[in-house]
Amino acid sequence: MANCILCEEGARYEDGILVWRGDDCRVVLVHDMNLPGFSRIIWNRHFKEMTELSFVERELLMTIVFAVEGAVREVMKPDKVNLASLGNQAPHLHWHVVPRFLDDAFFPDSIWSNRVRDTANDVLERRRTLALALPAAIRAAISQLY
Amino acid sequence: MANCILCEEGARYEDGILVWRGDDCRVVLVHDMNLPGFSRIIWNRHFKEMTELSFVERELLMTIVFAVEGAVREVMKPDKVNLASLGNQAPHLHWHVVPRFLDDAFFPDSIWSNRVRDTANDVLERRRTLALALPAAIRAAISQLY
Repeated sequence: MANCILCEEGARYEDGILVWRGDDCRVVLVHDMNLPGFSRIIWNRHFKEMTELSFVERELLMTIVFAVEGAVREVMKPDKVNLASLGNQAPHLHWHVVPRFLDDAFFPDSIWSNRVRDTANDVLERRRTLALALPAAIRAAISQLY
Repeated sequence: MANCILCEEGARYEDGILVWRGDDCRVVLVHDMNLPGFSRIIWNRHFKEMTELSFVERELLMTIVFAVEGAVREVMKPDKVNLASLGNQAPHLHWHVVPRFLDDAFFPDSIWSNRVRDTANDVLERRRTLALALPAAIRAAISQLY
């Protein structure tokens, strides 16, 4: 679809690095200074709602989402995982998988709420280091599905 | 689990009306003056993350979530649906299914972001009237699954 930022692919268009790409969807590790490990699963074709997908497509997408959640939990050891498919700004199906920590910038509010604190730099650095292992863990989790 | 508001059931504890209850999860129509049609699916037992569920439990929960999304789209005709499982405040598995409209109080931001406008009263009233049909539509959508 014209003018859809998620229909355009490639480094120029994604706010992160491409971790895995399949025929139907792709996984991006989001660059977010406050939220290391923030991952996004994007359906490749332009669909707006989950219930516009066929049953098989929906199963495939959610299976990838939960594989990413598993990898995020394993690598980041978060206090909570947030899953969300909003699409108000970019109405092209995508899922956010966000590892949340009691001391992160927004906890216990949503990551779209007002920032409530600064996380200690050494804590953030440690989490950014952990997140370096996430691409391999996500690819390993997905490869087990195929 | 002690002190978990979502382990406690019944009118006193839910911020909405119980629409449907199964052995594993229940559906509540949330009382939210700004967001008519806001629905919530709550896993009955205390689990924190989707990937703590068994495969079969996860399938069951997501099937109900998407049945609710379908009913919400059919009845409310929203501009977008938002799906989210956050659980930062109540770490007991639940899903928000929120019909969003271009002129709702928060659009295009998340419903956990700052309010950006007042929706016209007559528009809200019309949506609240539409939402009256939602419990029957949700029950019908779920009954087709059993």
